[in-house]
Parts: sequence; C-alpha cells; structure tokens
Amino acid sequence: MSYTESLSKLLASADASEGCKLSVKTGGRTYTGLMMPRHDMSAPDTLVLKLDSGFNIGVRMRSDASIEVLEKPVKAVEKTEVPTFKKGLKKLVLLGTGGTIASRIDHRTGRVEPVMSGSEILNLIPEISDVANIESKSLFSVYSDNMSPEHWQKIAVAVAEEINSGADGVLISHGTDTMGYTAAALSFMLYNVPKPVVLVGAQRSSDRPSTDAAGNLIAGARFCVDGNKAGVFVVMHETIGDDLFAVHSGTRVRKMHSSRRDAFRSMNVPLVARIDRDGKIEHLSECRPVSDRKIKADTKMEENCLLLYCFPGMKPESFEDAVMNSKGVVLAGTGLGHVNESMIPLIRKATEAGIPVVMTTQCLEGTVNLNVYNAGREILAAGAIPAEDMLPETALVKLMWILGNYPADATESIMNVSFAGETSDRRVL
Amino acid sequence: MSYTESLSKLLASADASEGCKLSVKTGGRTYTGLMMPRHDMSAPDTLVLKLDSGFNIGVRMRSDASIEVLEKPVKAVEKTEVPTFKKGLKKLVLLGTGGTIASRIDHRTGRVEPVMSGSEILNLIPEISDVANIESKSLFSVYSDNMSPEHWQKIAVAVAEEINSGADGVLISHGTDTMGYTAAALSFMLYNVPKPVVLVGAQRSSDRPSTDAAGNLIAGARFCVDGNKAGVFVVMHETIGDDLFAVHSGTRVRKMHSSRRDAFRSMNVPLVARIDRDGKIEHLSECRPVSDRKIKADTKMEENCLLLYCFPGMKPESFEDAVMNSKGVVLAGTGLGHVNESMIPLIRKATEAGIPVVMTTQCLEGTVNLNVYNAGREILAAGAIPAEDMLPETALVKLMWILGNYPADATESIMNVSFAGETSDRRVL
Repeated sequence: MSYTESLSKLLASADASEGCKLSVKTGGRTYTGLMMPRHDMSAPDTLVLKLDSGFNIGVRMRSDASIEVLEKPVKAVEKTEVPTFKKGLKKLVLLGTGGTIASRIDHRTGRVEPVMSGSEILNLIPEISDVANIESKSLFSVYSDNMSPEHWQKIAVAVAEEINSGADGVLISHGTDTMGYTAAALSFMLYNVPKPVVLVGAQRSSDRPSTDAAGNLIAGARFCVDGNKAGVFVVMHETIGDDLFAVHSGTRVRKMHSSRRDAFRSMNVPLVARIDRDGKIEHLSECRPVSDRKIKADTKMEENCLLLYCFPGMKPESFEDAVMNSKGVVLAGTGLGHVNESMIPLIRKATEAGIPVVMTTQCLEGTVNLNVYNAGREILAAGAIPAEDMLPETALVKLMWILGNYPADATESIMNVSFAGETSDRRVL
Repeated sequence: MSYTESLSKLLASADASEGCKLSVKTGGRTYTGLMMPRHDMSAPDTLVLKLDSGFNIGVRMRSDASIEVLEKPVKAVEKTEVPTFKKGLKKLVLLGTGGTIASRIDHRTGRVEPVMSGSEILNLIPEISDVANIESKSLFSVYSDNMSPEHWQKIAVAVAEEINSGADGVLISHGTDTMGYTAAALSFMLYNVPKPVVLVGAQRSSDRPSTDAAGNLIAGARFCVDGNKAGVFVVMHETIGDDLFAVHSGTRVRKMHSSRRDAFRSMNVPLVARIDRDGKIEHLSECRPVSDRKIKADTKMEENCLLLYCFPGMKPESFEDAVMNSKGVVLAGTGLGHVNESMIPLIRKATEAGIPVVMTTQCLEGTVNLNVYNAGREILAAGAIPAEDMLPETALVKLMWILGNYPADATESIMNVSFAGETSDRRVL
C-alpha cells in the first residue's frame, strides 16, 4: 500500500517526510500537524497528521492540495560524550527514570516510546550547560503509570547518595502521570532534605519541536542553582507558552489536565516560586534554605494500602474484603469529608481491627471538617482520621510511609503533623 | 457550668446571645464569628466562636475584652402560608430534597441540621416572589452525602410530573456534596427535557447571615424565567461575593472546594451562562431552547457499578472480587487514561465476562486518549471503553443508566454518544 502518484509527487516536491511539521491546504481548509506514516486503513489519497492536541487526523488530499514543510524533525542526537564541566557552576545530577520527557515519537506507529538517556536529553538542550554542570545518570526507564513504591525507594536512595556525595541539587526526569505521587513519596522519604530535589517532566516528547522538556529542565536547573530552597519540588510549565514555569511543593501538586503543558497545579497553597524564561525567580512561599546537612532516606513503605473514592450507590460489601485485608485506607469523601451512612459500619470495623482509615475530600481543594454535620461526627466516632487539606494522593503516600516506619497506633498523631508542608497548620478547636 | 461573672456581664451588656455574629477584641486581637453555646470542655472565661470558615475557635477573654454584636441571628420563620400568586409571572416549582440550603444551625451543638421546608426557605427570600410564582414541594430531606440512585429516581419522576403539568421550570434545592452526581443522573433520566431544571444549594445554611442560599435560588429562578434554555443545570455562586452566579451543565459540573461559595466549576466546557445580581444573563454556550414537549423519565439504573480511582501500588487482587461481582466499572486512570500494567489482566477478565470497563482520567480536565502510548493501546485491547473528556462521576452515573436501560453489549456505542453534553464531539482518527 502506498500513496497515490499525485500525492507522492506532492510530498516529494515539498521535501516532506514522516516527522515533518506540515501546513496542508486542501478543499478550502488548512491543517497543521506532524506527518505520520501512512495508515494501513486509510485511502491512498489520505495524509495522516498528528495535531498539536496529540490527535491524529486523516486529510483527504484533493486536486487543489498544497503542502508546505514548516519544521523538519529534530534529528536523534548521536553524541553521548560527557560535556566539559565549566568552572564556577554548581553541580547538579540528573536522574533519569523514563517518561515522555525521555521519549521519541515512533513515526511508524505514531506512538511515543521511552528510549532516550539523560545525556541524550541534555544534548538536545545545549544551553543548559551554562546554568550548571549536570551529570546524567539513568536509574531505570518506565512510564510513570507503571511506577510503584519500589521505584520511589530506588529514586530516594539515589537522591540521598548524590546529595551526600556533594551534589548541589538533583533533577529527576519523570513521567507526568504519577509525578505528584512520586514527589510526595520523596518528600516523606527524604525528610528535611538539605538541597533542592526537582522533578521535571514533559507533556510532549523531547524530540518534538513543540516539546516542553527543555523549558522545564532549564527552569528546574535554575531553581536548583539560584533558588536557595531545600525540599522536594515539581517544576513544570505554568502557562501553555514557554514563558513561565511553576515550582510546586512536592506534597501539594496534582496533574489537573491530561495533556496541556500547564497541567500541574498547586492545590490549597500558593506556588513555591515562579521562574520566567530569563531565569528570574519570583519567590511566592517560604521554604527551608539550602544547607550542608547529610541525609538518609527512610524508604520503608507499607504497600498494602488503598485509596477509595466515595460515590452515591457505593456498597460497603463491594469493598469490605479489600479494606479488611489492607493495612490502611484513604477515603476521598464528598464535601467536607462525608460518606454515605451505609459505609460508616465498615469504617468502624476497619479501625476496630487496627486498620487506620484516613478521610480526605474528593473536592481536592479545601479542608476536611468532620465537626460541622452529624454525619461527620459519626465518621469521627467510627475512628476515621481527618486529613485536613491534604490531597487524597498525598495522604495515601503518607499513610504508606507512616505504616512502613512507625507503629500503627501512632498513625493518627503523625498523620496530622506536617512533615513536608502536606497540611496547613491545624486550627484550634 | 457557666461563664465567669465578668464574661457573663460583658455578654449581657453587649446584648450578645447564641447565634449572634460578634466582633470580639481581647489581647490585642480581633475575632469575628457566630457565638456558639458554651463548650463543656472550655474554661469559663472562654467564648466559642464559629468563624466564617466553619471552624470553631475558643477565645480566652482577658480583662481588656470587649464585645460588639454585628448581626442578630435570623429568626426562624413561623408563617408557612402559600404566597399570593402574581399575574404574568411564570410558574416554577421548588422541589426540596434537604441539604445545607434547607438547614439551620443547632446552636446547642454548633452543628447544622436539615429542618427547613421549601416554603420556609422561600419565606426567607421574599424578593423571589417578584421573579416567578414558585410553588414549593418537599420530596424528602437528606444531606446529599446520603443520596442514592433511588433518590435520583424520585426526583426525576417528580420533575417530569411537574413539567408535564405545566411548570415553566423546576428548581431543586439539594445538598452540595453529591449535587454533581444528581445533576448528571437527571440529565440522563430526563433526556431532552423541554424546560430548565435547575439544582441549587448552599455552602452556608439558610438561617445564617452569610448564607449563599438566597443568591443561588434567585439566580436559578431568573435563569428559569429568562434563560430560554432547556436542560439540567446547576446554579451556584461563581465568586465568593454575592455578585455573580454561574450556570453549569448538569453533566460537566464538579464540586471543587469543600467549603467555598464558589466551589462549583464547569470542567472541560465553558459555563452555560453567568447571571449578575441584577438578573442580567450572559449566555456563554449553546443549549436547546425551551419547548412544550411532554417528557417521560427513564429512571432505571443499574446500581451495582463501581468507580475506582487508580494509584501506584494498586493491587488487582484487592479489587478483583468487587469488579467481577459488579455489573460495570469506571476507572479514573492517570494522565490520558492509564493504569499500572498489573491492572490490565483484570480489565480483560472483566470485559471478557461482559462487565464493561470505562476509562476516564483522574486529572478531571482534558480527554482520555488511549492511542498515544503503548500502555493505552494495551488497555484498549483489553476491552476498556475510553470516555473521552467525560468526568469520572458523570461516566459512573451514565454507566448505571445505560446498564439500566440498554443491553450490556450496546454500552460502548452508547457511552460515547453525547446525550446531554457529557462529552465533547469525538474527533476523527
């Protein structure tokens, strides 16, 4: 199967090939997108374009069709030699874990594959070598939907090693899907970390002209170098342009859009900082300053924990075995932290069996308050632990960490101490 | 137990009693809040105030303390007579279902109790009688955390009856916790409803000076009267002031803050309309106009459906029994609709057993796209149904409705037809 003769000629005369960004005019309309391989199911006069939205579209090329190449594909970088270190610049380590940021488009399938090493990514961004001396190390390569607590542990150990070996900061390239969970896990495992630890990712693979990887990595590196803030952070686009980058607290950040560059948002707190394209840092909230303390990673996690989202019609019997066979449960209740009253006996049964049940809100913003309504009081009486304004995902990760490192009966008191900014100060009664 | 003599005198001289809004100055600080009953556990020199945030605070009254009454509590309304109907105004029906909007603060406990009827609410808002002739009927009185599909069915039947009996629109006063779920359920049950059906609620009970109930009800009534839009909508504060009110599509709205007045947001779509305090309507998206068609309510629901939120460390064995004993499952995956690969065999097992598995995104904004990454392709191959940019909660309600009214093997084709604006138009391949 191949294109029609006229379409083949048109492509040849425009010097258009797979991976080029094209402007295609036909039938009075103009389409802009990456040229994909011919689709086996498409007619021979149809060109498949990947739009900026990520969607593929089949364009039937009429006799009036014209093609213009807007951009050639970024060539895969061959050189992988370590760049020369520049005197006077701080030393950062880039830990590669996979994800879109380390991916290339496979033009045969139009899909994205994780293949690039950290040095390959850095080689695509030569200007970053003016910001810091960055040493690249690959930990593993997985998309973040497949990250597990075991991966968090490997990352935490590696970060602690690099910081104790003298790194001024650590960048972690990571898939975006579960970046918030990993950031929370590192925030607890690396309690009181003395340097900046910055997760960066991309919503478009690094070999695409439209990639957001470069902007995020450079902003992350600048924050490590000039921010004087210690902790675990996520640095991603604040806007859909390449002009502003947001620094989020690792325990407060959530992916709030499936595809936009500005998908990440700080929930219930202001940004830590904002970085513009010239590297100027606007500080928006307080953090501990950088220090030279040594750290160790407390990486133990109780993996057998559940996050359950509450909904009308939820039947306690559907979840009873899962709850009673777990070591701890986070509920994302409605509103101020409510559940259907039919769920309350299961909460009581779990807590009486020593299985902590933590209450968060599926609103995601605002705080849990179980003292306003009778329903809340009954949930409290059943032994649930209100998690204030902690994100459900962060509460899950924290519960795994508490149960891995502390006796189970200390869960309630530890849950509401803010270890890494994960809850706002508790109010007095 | 009682207050100290000096505090009792201070309260008496300020004419302050439980339920009054007070400004209290002591120790160089000023506190503003509702005066609560004395707390048995508090010291006799401590006054308990409920802050606007809903939190109670104990203020120790020093010798320098002063008290000013800012507002007296709203008196419970005794008269419940039906107001005289005004000629020329449209006829609306207010269906009461309970919730904060129908609640009073119990000053003995500081908690909120659902006690008011629809006519009591209307009597607190005399100016609404200039907007429409509103007949009030009470369906039941529950907080919305206890709403179930059975409640949705009762509401849908009542709405259809009122519209077929000549109502120009129906207002439904409803708790805010699960208002979005109910709005989605009514959107499907009342397919192509010919009149406006508007859910309204409140984040502060109707007897509080700070209540948002009046603003929401008046804006909802004005939209019914002047909007010329048919469908199921939610009308709530767009801002924290009393100046702008948002009209949301019933399938696209989500409570995104546990306590703020402006908690409700339209996800993935613009607002339907915006209403200012003078009743001016700014139309922001298209809807069917009002008509005189009769309707019937298709209220059958398959209640045995699950909404499962995916997270790192999620174990398929925890959820296998729940999934295999259900009639249908909605997953809130990460990013574009991904799950940990360990979950994919369970998706396959369910779909092969005829249990539909619908994929949504826990990002809440943006669309599911299972064609970008290999992981997504495997999830598709396992038989999952991508729900585009449908909210997870709306997908759950729609799945219940599809399984209640159509053969199970029609689920995929029906899931991605937009019945009530719940998905954006499908893109072409």
